[in-house]
Amino acid sequence: MTDRPSILIINGPNLNMLGQREPAIYGRDTLADIEAASRTKAAELGLDVDFLQSNAEGELVDWAQNASKSHAGIIINAGGYTHTSVALLDALTVSELPVVEVHLSNIFRREEFRHHSYISRAASGVICGFGLKGYLLALDAMAQLIRPD
Amino acid sequence: MTDRPSILIINGPNLNMLGQREPAIYGRDTLADIEAASRTKAAELGLDVDFLQSNAEGELVDWAQNASKSHAGIIINAGGYTHTSVALLDALTVSELPVVEVHLSNIFRREEFRHHSYISRAASGVICGFGLKGYLLALDAMAQLIRPD
Amino acid sequence: MTDRPSILIINGPNLNMLGQREPAIYGRDTLADIEAASRTKAAELGLDVDFLQSNAEGELVDWAQNASKSHAGIIINAGGYTHTSVALLDALTVSELPVVEVHLSNIFRREEFRHHSYISRAASGVICGFGLKGYLLALDAMAQLIRPD
Amino acid sequence: MTDRPSILIINGPNLNMLGQREPAIYGRDTLADIEAASRTKAAELGLDVDFLQSNAEGELVDWAQNASKSHAGIIINAGGYTHTSVALLDALTVSELPVVEVHLSNIFRREEFRHHSYISRAASGVICGFGLKGYLLALDAMAQLIRPD
Amino acid sequence: MTDRPSILIINGPNLNMLGQREPAIYGRDTLADIEAASRTKAAELGLDVDFLQSNAEGELVDWAQNASKSHAGIIINAGGYTHTSVALLDALTVSELPVVEVHLSNIFRREEFRHHSYISRAASGVICGFGLKGYLLALDAMAQLIRPD
Amino acid sequence: MTDRPSILIINGPNLNMLGQREPAIYGRDTLADIEAASRTKAAELGLDVDFLQSNAEGELVDWAQNASKSHAGIIINAGGYTHTSVALLDALTVSELPVVEVHLSNIFRREEFRHHSYISRAASGVICGFGLKGYLLALDAMAQLIRPD
Amino acid sequence: MTDRPSILIINGPNLNMLGQREPAIYGRDTLADIEAASRTKAAELGLDVDFLQSNAEGELVDWAQNASKSHAGIIINAGGYTHTSVALLDALTVSELPVVEVHLSNIFRREEFRHHSYISRAASGVICGFGLKGYLLALDAMAQLIRPD
Amino acid sequence: MTDRPSILIINGPNLNMLGQREPAIYGRDTLADIEAASRTKAAELGLDVDFLQSNAEGELVDWAQNASKSHAGIIINAGGYTHTSVALLDALTVSELPVVEVHLSNIFRREEFRHHSYISRAASGVICGFGLKGYLLALDAMAQLIRPD
Amino acid sequence: MTDRPSILIINGPNLNMLGQREPAIYGRDTLADIEAASRTKAAELGLDVDFLQSNAEGELVDWAQNASKSHAGIIINAGGYTHTSVALLDALTVSELPVVEVHLSNIFRREEFRHHSYISRAASGVICGFGLKGYLLALDAMAQLIRPD
Amino acid sequence: MTDRPSILIINGPNLNMLGQREPAIYGRDTLADIEAASRTKAAELGLDVDFLQSNAEGELVDWAQNASKSHAGIIINAGGYTHTSVALLDALTVSELPVVEVHLSNIFRREEFRHHSYISRAASGVICGFGLKGYLLALDAMAQLIRPD
Amino acid sequence: MTDRPSILIINGPNLNMLGQREPAIYGRDTLADIEAASRTKAAELGLDVDFLQSNAEGELVDWAQNASKSHAGIIINAGGYTHTSVALLDALTVSELPVVEVHLSNIFRREEFRHHSYISRAASGVICGFGLKGYLLALDAMAQLIRPD
Amino acid sequence: MTDRPSILIINGPNLNMLGQREPAIYGRDTLADIEAASRTKAAELGLDVDFLQSNAEGELVDWAQNASKSHAGIIINAGGYTHTSVALLDALTVSELPVVEVHLSNIFRREEFRHHSYISRAASGVICGFGLKGYLLALDAMAQLIRPD
Repeated sequence: MTDRPSILIINGPNLNMLGQREPAIYGRDTLADIEAASRTKAAELGLDVDFLQSNAEGELVDWAQNASKSHAGIIINAGGYTHTSVALLDALTVSELPVVEVHLSNIFRREEFRHHSYISRAASGVICGFGLKGYLLALDAMAQLIRPD
Repeated sequence: MTDRPSILIINGPNLNMLGQREPAIYGRDTLADIEAASRTKAAELGLDVDFLQSNAEGELVDWAQNASKSHAGIIINAGGYTHTSVALLDALTVSELPVVEVHLSNIFRREEFRHHSYISRAASGVICGFGLKGYLLALDAMAQLIRPD
Repeated sequence: MTDRPSILIINGPNLNMLGQREPAIYGRDTLADIEAASRTKAAELGLDVDFLQSNAEGELVDWAQNASKSHAGIIINAGGYTHTSVALLDALTVSELPVVEVHLSNIFRREEFRHHSYISRAASGVICGFGLKGYLLALDAMAQLIRPD
Repeated sequence: MTDRPSILIINGPNLNMLGQREPAIYGRDTLADIEAASRTKAAELGLDVDFLQSNAEGELVDWAQNASKSHAGIIINAGGYTHTSVALLDALTVSELPVVEVHLSNIFRREEFRHHSYISRAASGVICGFGLKGYLLALDAMAQLIRPD
Repeated sequence: MTDRPSILIINGPNLNMLGQREPAIYGRDTLADIEAASRTKAAELGLDVDFLQSNAEGELVDWAQNASKSHAGIIINAGGYTHTSVALLDALTVSELPVVEVHLSNIFRREEFRHHSYISRAASGVICGFGLKGYLLALDAMAQLIRPD
Repeated sequence: MTDRPSILIINGPNLNMLGQREPAIYGRDTLADIEAASRTKAAELGLDVDFLQSNAEGELVDWAQNASKSHAGIIINAGGYTHTSVALLDALTVSELPVVEVHLSNIFRREEFRHHSYISRAASGVICGFGLKGYLLALDAMAQLIRPD
Repeated sequence: MTDRPSILIINGPNLNMLGQREPAIYGRDTLADIEAASRTKAAELGLDVDFLQSNAEGELVDWAQNASKSHAGIIINAGGYTHTSVALLDALTVSELPVVEVHLSNIFRREEFRHHSYISRAASGVICGFGLKGYLLALDAMAQLIRPD
Repeated sequence: MTDRPSILIINGPNLNMLGQREPAIYGRDTLADIEAASRTKAAELGLDVDFLQSNAEGELVDWAQNASKSHAGIIINAGGYTHTSVALLDALTVSELPVVEVHLSNIFRREEFRHHSYISRAASGVICGFGLKGYLLALDAMAQLIRPD
Repeated sequence: MTDRPSILIINGPNLNMLGQREPAIYGRDTLADIEAASRTKAAELGLDVDFLQSNAEGELVDWAQNASKSHAGIIINAGGYTHTSVALLDALTVSELPVVEVHLSNIFRREEFRHHSYISRAASGVICGFGLKGYLLALDAMAQLIRPD
Repeated sequence: MTDRPSILIINGPNLNMLGQREPAIYGRDTLADIEAASRTKAAELGLDVDFLQSNAEGELVDWAQNASKSHAGIIINAGGYTHTSVALLDALTVSELPVVEVHLSNIFRREEFRHHSYISRAASGVICGFGLKGYLLALDAMAQLIRPD
Repeated sequence: MTDRPSILIINGPNLNMLGQREPAIYGRDTLADIEAASRTKAAELGLDVDFLQSNAEGELVDWAQNASKSHAGIIINAGGYTHTSVALLDALTVSELPVVEVHLSNIFRREEFRHHSYISRAASGVICGFGLKGYLLALDAMAQLIRPD
Repeated sequence: MTDRPSILIINGPNLNMLGQREPAIYGRDTLADIEAASRTKAAELGLDVDFLQSNAEGELVDWAQNASKSHAGIIINAGGYTHTSVALLDALTVSELPVVEVHLSNIFRREEFRHHSYISRAASGVICGFGLKGYLLALDAMAQLIRPD
């Protein structure tokens, strides 16, 4: 284990299906592609990364709660739970860590019910619409949040 | 394993309690009764059936995601998650299978919050209000969806 | 006249145009096709069928009112009046017969104003999204409603 | 034909079913009972009565339009069209006659969608909740509207 | 004191100002005129009348609560409290007496906030738009409510 | 019968009363005046005209459905059904003809419930507020829709 | 008694607690301070003042009703009844006097339910956010309303 | 007078009718029963109690305002004013005392308009649904609020 | 195992973090503190307690379903699922046990989305705003619900 | 300068981009084409035309204000300001000229936020959905508004 | 230039048209009259005044931004931008000056869309309904805001 | 002029005030700081930058319209116009360029009216909450949009 700050990247439901899921919306990159690119980017930024995915709301809550012991920040793409989970909002608040919210697609151009995010209330900032690239921008933003110039 | 098409029947939260749960609304049939009747009906239609139940939203998501590898269609009674789960809607869409939504009761005659279904957006059709019989009608409808005349 | 139970199938406005009306939504079957298939299915179920269509709300109300004298149940596809007719809801309630509501398309995937049905308040159950097949499923469901096992 | 003022009493959809329709809500009186009682009451008040019923919105519109040629006032129980018919509202306004709106039941204690009446915008007053008696009160009110003291 | 049934007529805020208050809406009759006409009408119907007015919500509540000891029914024009007083609704319910709601003007042709009445939930019926005459109709309706044929 | 393109002009409820109906809103022209002016204008444009009026929603639906066999376009002033008829919207869509929606008054300056039109969803364009003249403008617009330069 | 015009200043619930009530919002002035300053200002303007306070809605209604006999205008800070009292709105209208509405705090920067005022419908104008000073401005405005240049 | 802390228990409109008012909802206990049980419980907790009831909103406001001089906390069941009184909310805030809100019934299972409480904004906590027992729990909670361990 | 009635206390997501989570809102007590105090209180009341916590909605559903076999009542603090879980509401209803809903904070003074509880529809009563103490009050209330005097 | 009446045609934001802007919605005509056709049409009608375009709300307001000095009527296509500009509505009202509102597309078939027009409140009539032709119809309508037969 | 504090009075769109614009609503005073009266009043109060008007939102934003360098307070009548301009709200906040919002008419008695003001969020207080006089009251209020006793 | 792709960075109202405007929300960086950092970042990415600011909605519209001739993409922080400008949305769509929307603060944690953006409908993606850094991330994202790997 290094002593570089470690960032927890949490992926919510259905993100394990990337690459096959509605590519017109989500693109052709798989979650493994995103993980690999995130690890490369993090290394450039002097950061470690833990990269997790689950379809279970409770598991996302567990991870967010525990992050404060071991991580310096949370990047989260909560998928469908973005719009429905007060429990996850509360868990992110509990963590007291800087949070960056990411979405692959521009959720504001999709169905009305995807325009509202509970998660945003606990996030420093939001990045959406840039596919895989959004995770790299989020790491960049996080690096600055935990190590402001 | 047969080479007959297999249909995944997914049952959501509290359906394991059928028979004892508010029989005035849900009737006296147990989930085992529904499974048995569904298997009989499927056999008549030349279909195999996998019949699952869970109270955990994440597990329902897992099953829906995986169905496309092994099944020809999904019949789903998502119980209380019908009205609250974007994650499950997304998982059904990911599956790219024909989906039939079933409810035991006529949800449009119950509380206002039960009138809205996220699941319907991913479903070919909806059948509600016919108790156990609704599952058999759903199998009938599914047979035609996957083997149109 | 037979002594088999007779089911009244009521079709509302524009259903006389089936086959030419927006086939991407409603399919290629004509109302005559639906009537023929319904008669065949009813015969299998030991049921008689009266099959009516009108564009006039008042006529649909008349038919529903009168059904209790001569019929054992009503299957209704009220077309555009589904969403706007309290008069028809009241007429179905007056009939005191079991009612099955049918729609060719999945109305929950269409315009917002098609998601609400006054008719549902008087119906035992709803079947939508299965085209012509939906009428046959409705007959099946009706058979059980009037002759439960 | 007398030269007494004549009042047109218009009854909308399903009122022909009175006596058998949900007696807990609408009571046991038939429309014939209401007509007979109305004629007796009108005679006491020195009024003639025309008493009509139809399930067809267009026919109600016709009657309201024509009333100004032959009648001194309109008493209307528009049934289900109360809540949905702009056409009937416009026809009552066209008539330029005093209009009294009647309902057998107290519509404000029933389903939410029965609380709103388009008809009220064209009515001098509203009487609801008194069953058959409400028609007699309406005649009383009308007598004063057309012959104020 | 007679042994005729006694009806309590409750008048709410600003009804003491009748005759001078917006005569285009409320007419030229004073509350004294209404009381006199109500007493005459009641006598014809074999009823006694108590006729009260107050601008204080609490006093109206008191009167409605106490009515059950001494009266056979309540006729109420709650004025502005019609639209805002849950306390008065509860008091009328507590009384367990038949209640007739009266309004001088047709409240459904006025400002939007006057279309909703809490009182209606506790009333057998509603009469509005007929000025002074409405009180007499209400007595007529009440006579029948407490002495149905 | 000529071989000039024929335009169906459909008039909805209460338009037969023009000239006497609320002239401050609808003007002094009668429907016969509008028909005459429309026929003159159509002749100038090399068009035939069928000019119909009905108070019955179902009849309007019938006419719209049948138009595609015999007409090149539909001009419709649906009166009160503009705001309430899904059935008429569907019938206009079924016709697959160009549709021009006309209103005599500027419906956007009237009551809130007149601001919404179901008909507009099936119309190429809308013309409102110009009285009789609006029909002539609609013919002009229709001429171009069916014979673009 | 002078023959100077007299202005009625009505203060609603909780204004008797000024000085101790949430001073961050309402300031340190007591109602006595406001009365004294109002009397001084009124004297400068050649006006008499009656200055009243009550926590009872009915009493405020009484005062507003009676004002027309004895006063030339009403300045009212209705406190919490501002947002809930139709009865008080009606009483102010009944008075047929010019009315100026005052609030100590800027109600539009506070909770959402304080943004709506029934009183405003009966007021010539509104002044809010200036504490004690607002009463003096209201007197100034009133002076002009009753004695326009 | 003792030197034990004194709690003011305020009861709003219609609570004087307990025991006879809708016993299915409110139970058979009278307000005197509640007062007696509250006094016993308070004595156990070393507290004094003042126990008041009024149907008048203004009187409730008066009591709440004055409480801070003489009491250590307020327990309030505001009855129908719970849902409509901003004045009472303000008075409770003015008191600067700990406030416990009590309801006999579970207001969240009743009509929609009973789900919203203005009072809650000024309360430390809310207890509802436990009938008479709820007052005793409220005293228990209050004891801790004014004498935390 | 004793033969004392056993109460199931269910704690939802993030309650395992008490003591560190936003202490200004939730206080300094840990869930272990609450459990200990609850056990002491239960013993005094002659009750057994099972005390559970989970971040997973499905697990909460499981526990509620199973409670009826082994417990006499359920006390539940559903955390973030309070506001979003129909599944949990249904599970509590299925249990057919008395349910008491508890919240540490006064949810009606927090964000708008925390004001609505699905759980309340299945609860006998609600206690909120009293921190750890609220659990003890809930046990007190439960004791009475299962052993009314 | 002629002494023919002059019509001011005002074009709002982005209309300078016509021809290249979303031609599927707005067609291939440029604003220069529209101006040329409008001038030709105006000449036929004996009218002069001033034809202006601006992206600046304030400039549109200036033009509308000044029009009354120099013009006989205003035809306006306010583009995006149609839906958001109270200032422009007020300026059109200030002008006291007849106003005709034009839109190239049928705004009622587009996004929800384009269905509402502030401009309509100041317009005699509205013409939408006919592309360039709509301007010519508007001139025709304007000719009649300023020179009624 | 004096060393008296200078107040910036900003007038928004259409206020340059005062005197001719809807005099029933806005009165007969011109903006020049208001400026003259404001200058006189300011002089009495020992204040300087800059008095500006523009129809352009951006220009109003510029003025508000720059005011803090040169002025001690802003009085603003933002006309139609009151209801639609977040940019102007932000500019007033940026200025960090005391702001008084003025309207000539009582906007709460006009169309619904005029009841909401973005400006109020940045204002110390609001004065509306007093015509020209309102500006003088605003200067009075401003004098106290910048020079409290 | 280089032949590197040029990005237009558009800044809306009040962004010229950065550094002094509510630094708790917007930070201490000035717009010049942001421009300098953006130029440095762009150079690293092989991009040219035009950096503009205006308080005038029309000017922002002009810039967006013209961008397609000279630029490869638009980064826009529309300030207060984000929430109110359909005209700007249309101009961005007209440009047919990739658009990245930036906000300094996390608008989803601020007032409700800042949660909605018209701009988002024309944007590929949104970045908010990262202050000056957000512009650099936007450039990074833009580089990839115009030169995907």
